[in-house]
Amino acid sequence: MNNYFRSNVEAMASYVPGEQPPRGTQVIKLNSNENPYPPSPAALAALKDIDSEWLRRYPEPFGGEFRQAASKVLGVPDDWIIVGNGSDEILSIVIRACAEPGRKVVYPIPTYVLYRTLTEMQAADILEIPYKEDNVLPVAELIAANGCVTFIASPNSPSGHVVPNDDLRKLASELSGVLVIDEAYVDFAEASALDLVQEYENVILIRTLSKGYSLAGLRLGFGIGNPQLLDGLLKVKDSYNIDAIACKVATAAINDQAYKNACVAKVKASRTQLATDLTNLGFRVWDSHGNFLLTQPPAGNAEYLYQKLKEQKILIRYFKQPGLEDKLRITVGTDEQNQILVQTLKPLL
Amino acid sequence: MNNYFRSNVEAMASYVPGEQPPRGTQVIKLNSNENPYPPSPAALAALKDIDSEWLRRYPEPFGGEFRQAASKVLGVPDDWIIVGNGSDEILSIVIRACAEPGRKVVYPIPTYVLYRTLTEMQAADILEIPYKEDNVLPVAELIAANGCVTFIASPNSPSGHVVPNDDLRKLASELSGVLVIDEAYVDFAEASALDLVQEYENVILIRTLSKGYSLAGLRLGFGIGNPQLLDGLLKVKDSYNIDAIACKVATAAINDQAYKNACVAKVKASRTQLATDLTNLGFRVWDSHGNFLLTQPPAGNAEYLYQKLKEQKILIRYFKQPGLEDKLRITVGTDEQNQILVQTLKPLL
Repeated sequence: MNNYFRSNVEAMASYVPGEQPPRGTQVIKLNSNENPYPPSPAALAALKDIDSEWLRRYPEPFGGEFRQAASKVLGVPDDWIIVGNGSDEILSIVIRACAEPGRKVVYPIPTYVLYRTLTEMQAADILEIPYKEDNVLPVAELIAANGCVTFIASPNSPSGHVVPNDDLRKLASELSGVLVIDEAYVDFAEASALDLVQEYENVILIRTLSKGYSLAGLRLGFGIGNPQLLDGLLKVKDSYNIDAIACKVATAAINDQAYKNACVAKVKASRTQLATDLTNLGFRVWDSHGNFLLTQPPAGNAEYLYQKLKEQKILIRYFKQPGLEDKLRITVGTDEQNQILVQTLKPLL
Repeated sequence: MNNYFRSNVEAMASYVPGEQPPRGTQVIKLNSNENPYPPSPAALAALKDIDSEWLRRYPEPFGGEFRQAASKVLGVPDDWIIVGNGSDEILSIVIRACAEPGRKVVYPIPTYVLYRTLTEMQAADILEIPYKEDNVLPVAELIAANGCVTFIASPNSPSGHVVPNDDLRKLASELSGVLVIDEAYVDFAEASALDLVQEYENVILIRTLSKGYSLAGLRLGFGIGNPQLLDGLLKVKDSYNIDAIACKVATAAINDQAYKNACVAKVKASRTQLATDLTNLGFRVWDSHGNFLLTQPPAGNAEYLYQKLKEQKILIRYFKQPGLEDKLRITVGTDEQNQILVQTLKPLL
């Protein structure tokens, strides 16, 4: 076949998401950081309430109803919110608006692998700066790199650590490009960097309904930032990127904070228990503020354990990457799922 | 505010979609080529059948269930199909995979304005070649331009004409880049270029469920092309671009061909009637194979009529563009809506 593609696209590998076994497969799925609890009953009720007119007509181009609901929940004006087809789309929009060949995209590693994929698509330069020991952010190096976009995931994946707001403030004030603070997992953490968007015009905070709100199947994420910054981003988004159903269901979900908070509390309690159980099995377990744990098995045989668990229909995440080959990322499931995992691991160690 | 954006993004204007008045507004909406009939009852039943597990978990990354259904309906293997968040996303994916600064994107005008917006985003060169008299495709000029991507909408909007397959074959065989045949409106036409995807490795056909299937609110479109071509495109798509609900509802809709065909037959009959009625009012009306009519009012006062109709809560589409200032694009509504339009127009002429 002829080569129809840009050379950077030709050269790049696809991003490989976590395995998604077909529905109905009997499997304990702890590989994609989905929430083990169903979404809010209010979200399900909103779904049942959708009539044909919502389907027949084009949706509102900016997800207005959701923006207004999120605005009230977060205490920011609604024009400070941009809605996307999952938070991945917001990340993609930022890269497409700001990055290009000759410009640099910068982030600390290890982190969300999609940052690299998106930058490769845009043929921009990539600068990956390793985290220091104990997940200390390499602030000076990130500032010196001065990317057109700097990504910081906080809580980070797979490590689960939160980046202190003081470090983020230093970055925001010194960088001349956009600072993306990816808070996909913030619902499971104690702190947020939300205040920073009002302090710095170059900060955009990314949120999703896939994790805390149990709506990974719905694809709804959003960004929070200065409206002038968002204006530039809106230019590169698809006209109708949010479907009418997702907008309506997500609105109901974000309005039900009590339900979300109750699920999050359960996940956090289970996270503590699972960390204890794995530590007792000899695992090193990093302190996590997400709905997952980064762990190092006692014999460092991470890939072996990943495979063995898979054979026994338990999916966890193994990253074949420098610094992660001897580690496993385990999504926090229900207490029952976590117990099955622990009991299945025991004879394998 | 600092300039954080690429210069092409900074310079570009946003694509302006047709007005989408808030739900509940009393308005006859003939401006966005939506289908006036509701989607298939099977699609609505699929929507009611969705349970929380579909929402909680990530969707299948490639819209597998829909691909299989579309494969059967169209008679092409399922790996010849790429699914997108509306056909707009497939157009965007093609541009992002193939176009870049120094490469040319080519299309005949007037046509879908989004081709220009997407190319501007990518900072590629744009070559717009005017249609010849009577909507004859400028084949030689398009071949000579030899774009990395060439867009042909067929049926075209706003003209409603279909491009003959012989012309498309000439293009496909002579161009060294990708030929995108945008068949968003094909359900209202008598012919398709579907055969060409098996004849030429550089052809991708674009379809949508927004028009014939009345699912504009759902955002589901797809491309049909050689699997090797699609492999390159899949690299730049978001990992989970199709939400689980859209996939399920669209699958039910495409499986119900009888319902779609019945709606399309009604729209085509109404199109004929509306064309006659407008001709009788002195309008020039172009022959259309879409669910809309390009028309020229007798006094050429298109913008005035557009405004006056809007005051009376009838929305149609006016494009302030060279060659279109004296014309109006009118979506074919129900017979009742079309009659109200005609009666409202009469005293304004």
